[in-house]
Amino acid sequence: MLANIQGNDDTFLALDIGGTYVKSGLITRRGEILSFHSFPTSEGQSPTHLLELIIGRLKDLRSEAGSKRAPKALGIGAPGWIKPKEGVLALAPNIPGWKDLPITRLMSQALKIPAVLENDANLYGLGEWLAGAGRGHENLIVLTLGTGVGGGLILEGRLWSGSFASAAEIGHIPLGGERQRLCGCGRLGCLETVASTNGMRKIAIERVRDGEPTRYRGDLDLLDTSVMVELAQEGDPLSTRIFAEAGEAIGWVLAGVFNLLGLEAAVIGGGGAGAFDFILPSLKKVLSHHMVTATFDEIRVVKGALGGNAPLVGAAALLNNHGF
Amino acid sequence: MLANIQGNDDTFLALDIGGTYVKSGLITRRGEILSFHSFPTSEGQSPTHLLELIIGRLKDLRSEAGSKRAPKALGIGAPGWIKPKEGVLALAPNIPGWKDLPITRLMSQALKIPAVLENDANLYGLGEWLAGAGRGHENLIVLTLGTGVGGGLILEGRLWSGSFASAAEIGHIPLGGERQRLCGCGRLGCLETVASTNGMRKIAIERVRDGEPTRYRGDLDLLDTSVMVELAQEGDPLSTRIFAEAGEAIGWVLAGVFNLLGLEAAVIGGGGAGAFDFILPSLKKVLSHHMVTATFDEIRVVKGALGGNAPLVGAAALLNNHGF
Repeated sequence: MLANIQGNDDTFLALDIGGTYVKSGLITRRGEILSFHSFPTSEGQSPTHLLELIIGRLKDLRSEAGSKRAPKALGIGAPGWIKPKEGVLALAPNIPGWKDLPITRLMSQALKIPAVLENDANLYGLGEWLAGAGRGHENLIVLTLGTGVGGGLILEGRLWSGSFASAAEIGHIPLGGERQRLCGCGRLGCLETVASTNGMRKIAIERVRDGEPTRYRGDLDLLDTSVMVELAQEGDPLSTRIFAEAGEAIGWVLAGVFNLLGLEAAVIGGGGAGAFDFILPSLKKVLSHHMVTATFDEIRVVKGALGGNAPLVGAAALLNNHGF
Repeated sequence: MLANIQGNDDTFLALDIGGTYVKSGLITRRGEILSFHSFPTSEGQSPTHLLELIIGRLKDLRSEAGSKRAPKALGIGAPGWIKPKEGVLALAPNIPGWKDLPITRLMSQALKIPAVLENDANLYGLGEWLAGAGRGHENLIVLTLGTGVGGGLILEGRLWSGSFASAAEIGHIPLGGERQRLCGCGRLGCLETVASTNGMRKIAIERVRDGEPTRYRGDLDLLDTSVMVELAQEGDPLSTRIFAEAGEAIGWVLAGVFNLLGLEAAVIGGGGAGAFDFILPSLKKVLSHHMVTATFDEIRVVKGALGGNAPLVGAAALLNNHGF
């Protein structure tokens, strides 16, 4: 009975709509994943069909929960431009046909439980904070090195969204002078041009084409950051250098973030975190040089612990915060 | 009676200890300055003498208030390294002999009212937020272009101090590539090397010595940003360019801050704000290019309204926040 009062037996549904995979899970209030589904986003043959597939999976998960642990609410993570308060997915560039989609209303109607929408980078951050590498910190930032660089900012144990209900857009913090590359967003010099998996891959391909020394002998189309991590482990100079440069850029942006906000920790997640060991030394060097509010010893820069499931875990924190 | 319940008749004492001047005031809860004193910090012939002078001025102000409007608390702003919770001024580089000074305890004992200590840049920010150019905004940053560049960050209508009880150290956010100048803090490329009044003055003097064209014909020791503003108004290319470069650097740092936090406004105060009209165009250009979370039209970048009295006004907000 006590456990029930504390809500430890409560379950939630969690949904993470990515451009590549749609993940869904049955989770506890503490972020434990009880059951998990995943399918390629491309299986949705039309915008409506994709919605139907998602609802089907969520209903399956609800059935698994049984009536005793029926999920109380649904937490949804989505990329692109979202309006969390309205529950509307305004624009998801990687999901064709989804525009101004009132996703929380549609899901609530289908599942008969309340739904809350949040930016996927924010959910990722909440996940690492609740049950991952950021656990126990009140003030921290979580970076996701993926196709882009996302950010989730936790201030005083709550997700920070600012005046425009946005994610912490750390991927588009502009870098200085020499490093100006064109970003997918149309701007020059955004952090993600050099620190996202896509950015690092592009730089590697360019440099191989320019004849820079590397151990890589394969098809350039297959060169990505996972391959680069393997190469770096074998001492490949090209991969090692690109990771070090990414580390410098991240360290340099994080210095500004730490100086501004006096955070305790930064968590590096996303696929690019596979290169964490190669990124950290230069990151640490630049960050420790430029920090004012604390020394490097007083803060933590750590690798994310939850991987791709972080947004599902974060859904629990989101729903907790919303009072469910 | 109603006014009394609402606390509109309450008064506070405010103290702003600068390296050049010590200012003190009798203020209302709303930040109106009822009475004001100022004397050169150098009048204090020893650390103890300076304290005695300050206490004397504050007692004078308390007498002026009379028993009917006796001040309820004292708000203290100080530069350097402070410990707000302990009420200790750990290190004030511009005030010789003041080290690990338990200033709130000393003031409380002398004046028989509670005292609260805060970083002067934070108080400046609180002042502009309460009764100045930042009024009505919930999420904003206030920059002070002075000897250094200070920052006060207001999030959800409260001063943000982070995990290390620090100010928003925007002056030490590192700039990129080409602009790397050595900062007084020993680091390379801090914003304040190009955007503080001291930084801009130094750059001007260097460039005059290097033979860059300018209308200035006076003694180089007398060249400062006030003179540069007059020169710029007459079309002086050197001063105009240095202000434009400062604007670029500020715009570029603010882009990161706005992208990270989704703020509504930035207020530019301090002595360097005299050059606001010459700084704004390039600031706006760079900022609007790099903003992601909102457009330039949705946010405001405005000149501070309170000038050097902002910290005294901010003491009212500080004491309100502390429940006095």
